[in-house]
Amino acid sequence: MMTPQTIDALKSAVGSKGWSDDPHELAPHVRDWRGRWEGETPLLMKPASTDEVAAIVEICAKAGVAVTPQGGNTGLVGGSIPHGEILVSLTRMRTIRETDPANDSMTVEAGCILETIQQEAAAHNRLFPLSLGSQGSASIGGLISTNAGGVHVLRYGMMRDLVLGIEAVLPDGRVWNGLRGLRKDNSGYDLKQLFIGAEGTLGIVTAATLKLFPRPAETTIAFAGIPSPDAAVKLLGLAKTASGGALSALELIPRNALELVLEHIPGTRDPLAQPHPWYALIEIGAGRRGEGRSAMEATLEEAFDSHLVADAVIAESETQAAALWQLREPIAEAEKAHGKAAKHDVSIPVSRIAAFIEEASEAAARHVDGANVIAFGHVGDGNVHFNVAHKNAGAGDEFLKACEPATAAIYDLVQKYGGSIAAEHGVGTLKADELAERRPLDVELMRTVKAALDPQGLMNPRVLIPVR
Amino acid sequence: MMTPQTIDALKSAVGSKGWSDDPHELAPHVRDWRGRWEGETPLLMKPASTDEVAAIVEICAKAGVAVTPQGGNTGLVGGSIPHGEILVSLTRMRTIRETDPANDSMTVEAGCILETIQQEAAAHNRLFPLSLGSQGSASIGGLISTNAGGVHVLRYGMMRDLVLGIEAVLPDGRVWNGLRGLRKDNSGYDLKQLFIGAEGTLGIVTAATLKLFPRPAETTIAFAGIPSPDAAVKLLGLAKTASGGALSALELIPRNALELVLEHIPGTRDPLAQPHPWYALIEIGAGRRGEGRSAMEATLEEAFDSHLVADAVIAESETQAAALWQLREPIAEAEKAHGKAAKHDVSIPVSRIAAFIEEASEAAARHVDGANVIAFGHVGDGNVHFNVAHKNAGAGDEFLKACEPATAAIYDLVQKYGGSIAAEHGVGTLKADELAERRPLDVELMRTVKAALDPQGLMNPRVLIPVR
Repeated sequence: MMTPQTIDALKSAVGSKGWSDDPHELAPHVRDWRGRWEGETPLLMKPASTDEVAAIVEICAKAGVAVTPQGGNTGLVGGSIPHGEILVSLTRMRTIRETDPANDSMTVEAGCILETIQQEAAAHNRLFPLSLGSQGSASIGGLISTNAGGVHVLRYGMMRDLVLGIEAVLPDGRVWNGLRGLRKDNSGYDLKQLFIGAEGTLGIVTAATLKLFPRPAETTIAFAGIPSPDAAVKLLGLAKTASGGALSALELIPRNALELVLEHIPGTRDPLAQPHPWYALIEIGAGRRGEGRSAMEATLEEAFDSHLVADAVIAESETQAAALWQLREPIAEAEKAHGKAAKHDVSIPVSRIAAFIEEASEAAARHVDGANVIAFGHVGDGNVHFNVAHKNAGAGDEFLKACEPATAAIYDLVQKYGGSIAAEHGVGTLKADELAERRPLDVELMRTVKAALDPQGLMNPRVLIPVR
Repeated sequence: MMTPQTIDALKSAVGSKGWSDDPHELAPHVRDWRGRWEGETPLLMKPASTDEVAAIVEICAKAGVAVTPQGGNTGLVGGSIPHGEILVSLTRMRTIRETDPANDSMTVEAGCILETIQQEAAAHNRLFPLSLGSQGSASIGGLISTNAGGVHVLRYGMMRDLVLGIEAVLPDGRVWNGLRGLRKDNSGYDLKQLFIGAEGTLGIVTAATLKLFPRPAETTIAFAGIPSPDAAVKLLGLAKTASGGALSALELIPRNALELVLEHIPGTRDPLAQPHPWYALIEIGAGRRGEGRSAMEATLEEAFDSHLVADAVIAESETQAAALWQLREPIAEAEKAHGKAAKHDVSIPVSRIAAFIEEASEAAARHVDGANVIAFGHVGDGNVHFNVAHKNAGAGDEFLKACEPATAAIYDLVQKYGGSIAAEHGVGTLKADELAERRPLDVELMRTVKAALDPQGLMNPRVLIPVR
């Protein structure tokens, strides 16, 4: 129970720098950056160490008080917004505990910012490949808890694939130390998996040992005009084979998204002479100079011959490469300037992307009069951001409400094609009910695991698993 | 309870081809191929479909009868040997359900043999990269349940990293269908992880969707004489960088292991003019012709200049490449011809391999008079097969008994260096007690998960988690 005694015990567990109940300080922690959820908390905890996190969780466990963990609060599904829970922010835990280049690993605390980790890796001539829009503020604890994705999943995998070990505070306040920098460790169940993508519902990730990779010697970027999503999938096959595993991104962009970017993002220009219905942004990161360029040229040549690509440019400098990425990365920002959109972060087997986009576009048109479908994303890993926009959508939530039947139809198609309604953004509170309805046995099994490890149900309640 | 009625119900659930109690047929199923365990079962079940597996497990669950699942029975830790349980062999479930080259995925039933899967992938111009000694008889269900490793983990990861989806029969007989061919699916806990490496203790894997990769255009193999394990680790760093991620194996071989191979394996010869204390076998699989050779030459050139390599040969043909692998692959066979050995399948952070091998060798010498340490393995992923042999070891188990203090000292060093006492072979019944002693909180958490999902404790009891 949340008594004054509990609050006092929490405060004295961390010292004066370790907590706040100042509404001004709390404000950015209790709402998400897109402004969709507005929550509340009696106390913001700012532990500086794993021991302090453990003390906080133990006090809460004994008092039966619920806890919401929070990283950089860059999530899109409401998973880190407290609704009365004690809020535990990991932002003060920013120590890089060890970098071990010979083991290609780095051990960092949960509050470390992704960009800091990328820079630390680079300083040791290594690559930490996770790369996404919010990398300047997203922290590794949150990225692990949401199993973050981004543009390089095609080559390096999701956050899950980049974690060698985890340290976590369990729901009873004990510390589980699974910080092992090992590639092979068949010692029973892989317990770290329980905390990856669990959105804080099974404990609080306090540190992690991450995988590092060799830095590509040469990164080659091309931007190609293509006739269809189907051509993008075929192009993917060509580029994978030609680059021998060095293909690091293949992004699909529709003409209307490019137009939004050109209209709303200053300094952008269409690099191709003619408009094309679709575009592919291709990135190859080669181990040796010359090989990336040569693999890209071989890919595009074969693609021209097979009519998969109508026109293309290859960046001749880092500036040009950045300019091409600038046609892809700010699509969400350009969309926002354009107006409201019902967004669907879904994944589909790569072989079915083209069919899905076609049918889902028809469904959107059927349900939303004048719908403007903006379907873009990471073709290489099957992740489509399928957004339904409308130029006359007002500022309120009426448009999103009106899109609900379209959303249901789109999710039905996702299911039909063996896809997922939650690809890289996670479930949070946003999709918990939908998930329980569409994958009842999955959610029942999650509930069983959750009840075993967090019998009081105190870790980030309501998130992932609906309250019954 | 195991009553005649239960046995009858099991028999009629599968038809006459689906079971056996013929001692001759049972014999190879109740002992392991190394002859270390001899078990027993009242009934061997041979289901032909997931539905039959589900029916069997449901009958057993209702009767409170325990079950041991079995694949190709190639394990080394006793995990698939029944001791009175109903034995469920998946060998009749060999259908390849779907190959989807555009999604780089294949869905297969649990009984499919690894070699069949490799061949099916090759027929679609794809690679299924798992590669290990027993690939002609190991089945995918067992490989998943033990999270198999092998020589290509360095580049492609463990079995865990090669699984996109799983279908499993739960301990109550329900079928969980997680056969999704998706690279991104953040729909809560990644339930398939529960069945990978769980050694059949949480359910029976009946099918899986696997990841496929582009086939390398060119595979280049080199065999190098090197001064020390430390040189191998440094060579690994060079090869990783020079090949840009195309390095697919780096194996460490000591002189004494090479000598055993040359003595016991017909047709082998030392490819280098002079003996060297250690050797490295290096494999690079490049996407385009010429690139592998050129990356290998660049690696070796730099390694010569830095005195990491004293002499080396690069295979000029597939025959030569096979001959070089033939110096590494039959080490276990050559060792067996040599006599008894206490074997330790351990992993260590790559950066600490050299220190570990040195200290562990000292420990072995201290505890076993006249010990012959044979330490070889997968440097690229930190997996060392650290074997203590003795030329005068008799045929019985006395030598293994005499090695127990050495084993304890070796495992202490593994722990000191942050390693694992079970790297790629798993825990089984062989290491369950040792694991519980060395990682008590881990095993407590496993026990909690197991109790939640298999409350009667019927799935492969005694394996992984010691019976209390």
